[in-house]
Amino acid sequence: MTASKKTAGLAGVIAGQTALCKVGGEGAGLSYRGYDIYDLCDYAGFEEVAFLLMVGHLPNRSELDGYITKLKSLRGLPDAVKQVLEIVPANAHPMDVLRSGVSILGNLEPEEDFANQQSVADRLLACLPSMLLYWHRFHADGKRIDVETDDDSVSGHFLHMLHGKPPAELHRKSLDTTLILYAEHEFNASTFTARIIAGTLSDFHSAVCGAIGALRGPLHGGANEAAMELIQKFSSPEEAIKGVIGMLERKEKIMGFGHRVYTTSDPRNSVNKKMAGVLADEAGDTHLYANSEAIEKVMWDEKKIFANADFFAATVYHFMGIPTYLFTPIFVCSRITGWSAHIMEQRADNKLIRPAADYIGPGLQTYVRIEDRR
Amino acid sequence: MTASKKTAGLAGVIAGQTALCKVGGEGAGLSYRGYDIYDLCDYAGFEEVAFLLMVGHLPNRSELDGYITKLKSLRGLPDAVKQVLEIVPANAHPMDVLRSGVSILGNLEPEEDFANQQSVADRLLACLPSMLLYWHRFHADGKRIDVETDDDSVSGHFLHMLHGKPPAELHRKSLDTTLILYAEHEFNASTFTARIIAGTLSDFHSAVCGAIGALRGPLHGGANEAAMELIQKFSSPEEAIKGVIGMLERKEKIMGFGHRVYTTSDPRNSVNKKMAGVLADEAGDTHLYANSEAIEKVMWDEKKIFANADFFAATVYHFMGIPTYLFTPIFVCSRITGWSAHIMEQRADNKLIRPAADYIGPGLQTYVRIEDRR
Repeated sequence: MTASKKTAGLAGVIAGQTALCKVGGEGAGLSYRGYDIYDLCDYAGFEEVAFLLMVGHLPNRSELDGYITKLKSLRGLPDAVKQVLEIVPANAHPMDVLRSGVSILGNLEPEEDFANQQSVADRLLACLPSMLLYWHRFHADGKRIDVETDDDSVSGHFLHMLHGKPPAELHRKSLDTTLILYAEHEFNASTFTARIIAGTLSDFHSAVCGAIGALRGPLHGGANEAAMELIQKFSSPEEAIKGVIGMLERKEKIMGFGHRVYTTSDPRNSVNKKMAGVLADEAGDTHLYANSEAIEKVMWDEKKIFANADFFAATVYHFMGIPTYLFTPIFVCSRITGWSAHIMEQRADNKLIRPAADYIGPGLQTYVRIEDRR
Repeated sequence: MTASKKTAGLAGVIAGQTALCKVGGEGAGLSYRGYDIYDLCDYAGFEEVAFLLMVGHLPNRSELDGYITKLKSLRGLPDAVKQVLEIVPANAHPMDVLRSGVSILGNLEPEEDFANQQSVADRLLACLPSMLLYWHRFHADGKRIDVETDDDSVSGHFLHMLHGKPPAELHRKSLDTTLILYAEHEFNASTFTARIIAGTLSDFHSAVCGAIGALRGPLHGGANEAAMELIQKFSSPEEAIKGVIGMLERKEKIMGFGHRVYTTSDPRNSVNKKMAGVLADEAGDTHLYANSEAIEKVMWDEKKIFANADFFAATVYHFMGIPTYLFTPIFVCSRITGWSAHIMEQRADNKLIRPAADYIGPGLQTYVRIEDRR
């Protein structure tokens, strides 16, 4: 086994230090700046977690109130961004829409100086849902919606714009909890992308555009959409079990299972699964939750592979009426907090991230001029 | 020294295999698919090198003619892209313009299937100069230029759009040579960014947007612009020497020098330096080339740090009338070939790139509810 084979995909290779997140270890096995993810899900709101990740401590009441007020004031979109969102076709990939929206915003409201990084992060956190749902509603309903709602939370803002009315608290709180669960996860591919871009001392918007592009892939953020498509394919748990066993036999990839870092379970799964059950009951679901449970069980029985954070998040979103193609963009609206904190951490002790490659191409060739080539 | 300190910035860590480029080694010390960079500069054109990198062999005459014809047919911009380029402000960073142009194009002409990857690569190679110069001329001169010129080469197309007339062959050939030199360079930060994004199985445009964002940073592609600003600061070589010594004493960073991989010289420098001399003579230059030589010498004498590819590329571009803020975007118009070849290589034997992190944050904290926080 060559050195490069061993480090393929940099699996297990330590690429730097972070104080933001510990994956594996004491407690639930996932903590943000030392706080167990289960405590944060039980007691905190998403804005509190965003503050914790970026500022470094849990906010007191006055800090949190100030932060919520600030985020509410940053939801509006410049006319130029709205124009671009209207130009982007209705059938575009929503992740491409967010990538483009952030890129255009970087032209209109450039960071200019790293001293402005927290403002850029807050602006993106506040207006990513505005971009997504302005585009979605414009093309789905022909409506130019008002993106400056007075909901206190990102989750309330999101669902209000999506459905055109303030959400039920059960739905808002459930979305909020998934935003907490998705907020941060160490050196995952999109976060590492953001850090590499930040490491050249490029600007904040460039780093976030790159991260969105990475998260778009089905091996990363795209998994929750693929999970939903799978769950919906079957009309009963029995059919789901049969179908998944068939897929395993044909060596097809089943999305929403397994993880590069976790080995026996994903601590986020139990929270999502519980919420999915509650929302399924409320929605009068006849088979989707049961399908999910059946698929989870057969994957464990057959392959000892566990459901990850994406698997039950899919049904959570589905039962609150979110179209499947908006699932991965929700991940962006959450992970912008982790990306931002990592960009700031990278900049605080920067070194260009530039690995080496193992050359496996041909040795030195004699150049043959074009007239002598076959 | 901890494991993470040793691997900070992944310096020297092998992150994968490539058959595209060898940095260091026999010959000039830089080869593309086994061909010495000096042979390619002497005998090949940029389109030939693009074909070599992406398709895998040097084209014969009929392949090259076909490829040139194809690229010429792909220069046009959709109206929606032109609209966006007009919306982007005149004072935007040109790298943000290219990042946004590629992102929008990804909405309008999505890759859809990896089977289309070569077409997407060719399209971007052909139309990146169109995007850049449509935006530049619209805002600089108020002109909506025709981006579909009949120049055979990317270099001719670029200079024709910039200056509104076909370029002199000396200028076209000089630009062409810098495009060859910049085309590919193993696992540099922008290429590695593209590979990470491709590694999640995301789309081609996402990978290129991320790469542009990484190249934008002054520790990567931005160096040629910083070099030009330095060279122009001084009115004579004597002043330049004094100025640079002062900067070194104040421990200021001098751009365009040194390299993560090369240790004693950058093989691309001698080619650029020679061209810069020829173009300086032609332009009747009084001091800029002499300033460059003086800065190169003092950096070696004082610090044993050598000029890299960016340093004399700056004066090459300057003497053909290219505004400094378009230097890094030219790098994009060239490196799109290397990025594209790496995206294809990553996909051909894909594994998610996801390193680990060394956690240095606090241990598990007791959660204090907000009403009990200070």
